[in-house]
Amino acid sequence: MTVDGRLPAGTTAVAAVVGDPIRHSLSPELFNAAFQRCGLDWVFTAFEVPAPRIGDAVAAMRALPLRGLSVTMPHKASVVAHLDGLSPVAARLGAVNCIAWESDRLVGHSTDGAGLIDALRLDVGFEPEGARCVVVGAGGAARAAVAALADAGARRVVVVNRTAARARVAAGLAGDRGMVGTSGAFADAELIVNATPLGMHGSAPAGMPVDVALLSPGQVLFDMVYDPPVTPVVAAAREQGVDAVVGIGMLVHQAAHAFSLWTGEAAPVEAMSLAATTELARRHDARAE
Amino acid sequence: MTVDGRLPAGTTAVAAVVGDPIRHSLSPELFNAAFQRCGLDWVFTAFEVPAPRIGDAVAAMRALPLRGLSVTMPHKASVVAHLDGLSPVAARLGAVNCIAWESDRLVGHSTDGAGLIDALRLDVGFEPEGARCVVVGAGGAARAAVAALADAGARRVVVVNRTAARARVAAGLAGDRGMVGTSGAFADAELIVNATPLGMHGSAPAGMPVDVALLSPGQVLFDMVYDPPVTPVVAAAREQGVDAVVGIGMLVHQAAHAFSLWTGEAAPVEAMSLAATTELARRHDARAE
Repeated sequence: MTVDGRLPAGTTAVAAVVGDPIRHSLSPELFNAAFQRCGLDWVFTAFEVPAPRIGDAVAAMRALPLRGLSVTMPHKASVVAHLDGLSPVAARLGAVNCIAWESDRLVGHSTDGAGLIDALRLDVGFEPEGARCVVVGAGGAARAAVAALADAGARRVVVVNRTAARARVAAGLAGDRGMVGTSGAFADAELIVNATPLGMHGSAPAGMPVDVALLSPGQVLFDMVYDPPVTPVVAAAREQGVDAVVGIGMLVHQAAHAFSLWTGEAAPVEAMSLAATTELARRHDARAE
Repeated sequence: MTVDGRLPAGTTAVAAVVGDPIRHSLSPELFNAAFQRCGLDWVFTAFEVPAPRIGDAVAAMRALPLRGLSVTMPHKASVVAHLDGLSPVAARLGAVNCIAWESDRLVGHSTDGAGLIDALRLDVGFEPEGARCVVVGAGGAARAAVAALADAGARRVVVVNRTAARARVAAGLAGDRGMVGTSGAFADAELIVNATPLGMHGSAPAGMPVDVALLSPGQVLFDMVYDPPVTPVVAAAREQGVDAVVGIGMLVHQAAHAFSLWTGEAAPVEAMSLAATTELARRHDARAE
């Protein structure tokens, strides 16, 4: 935490994540590793805040103050009403995953989409500009992906989702390059993004978000799920010769953007990535024992 | 912090201290050392909360929640109005230095007096029961000392203070064993407690709280000031053959009581004492360079 690795002191700035549940959040590992690597006298903690208390948690951020706040389920939409302003992306999505101070105002940001684009460009080596993309799912993560892919210059963004009405809302975020589709869209896509929780450890419904028989070599499959370290759909897609990756890079890069918003410094992405993958591997191994 | 020395994680309970100023508080060192020694997944941070915001800080404790809160200047009296209950000692003093949860209620405690008695008994080997005591000063720390010495069975507690009206209020906390006195009371006392900030590093008014020429061997001088590690009055009293100690033990023991109120466990006093003295020595050396 502190510059020389000491425990938190009277000078230590505090940032935190709020959500419910929160105990399995990787944000403390990500941010504490980043603070330590950069020699910043900051510490990051987690608070389990139930849905009706999000306004009180934002008030707590003002009162103490907390120097930065990460926001996760179930608060990403409901927190908006308690802030003083929104970034353009957060306003468009109606969702916030990160709150930062701008002088004495609390401004909500949405860095998930930027995290996806960074992960594609920097980790996967995939350039979204001009690409034909499919996003599976229509929840908050899917909408962030649709908007970010469109902003990054994707040629088209097809949303595949069980509920057509929600798919239309998500696709609308890509303007005239957004459309609703079915699994028929997979064959022609250069990038397929799974934005559903299917395949996540501990997630209730089993099943694959994508029928990998429809995929072929040369395509990129980005699975936002990252626990287990190799998800079922990523394993199956790789057997088809597809360039398939789990979403840990998106988690790291969205946190890197939050880190910079809070501290004004460039994020130590490598240290954050190492912290996240180490902790995920530790949990995976602990379950296997 | 966490069981195996890892940085805070999603499971880590958070306790904190609020005050203004707060950056020089030793509470983070004391409590983080204690959590680490006991293998508790807790972390302790500090928040600088200006006087008018103490109610908001207590609301923040409820919202997040914080699992424990230490309260220091300027909030010890004003925080009372924001709590759900007080311990008997806190109610008598009208002051709180520690807030703990009792099921869903926030209860204020005052552990300064218990910290003084523990320091006298355990560190100095002085038994207050039946003793003739003098307390110099009449502020919050003095009042806690007067009440605690009386509760511990002191034969009498004389309050020496420039302002007689404040001295009378403080002495009243010892009932019919409390009285207001002058420096003439020093010669006959077995214990003299300095509860003024005189001699503290960075404290504005210079001067000695006690004229050590009035003291003699066999008496105990307890100086609540602990920075510098040997205060001017302690150094001078020792030259008179007086058993004189600085107040770091009181700081440690009041924190030990808070630790037990929050965690339900016995406090690792040795580890806390080592953390506090190490940090004080570090600061002292840094100033001398």
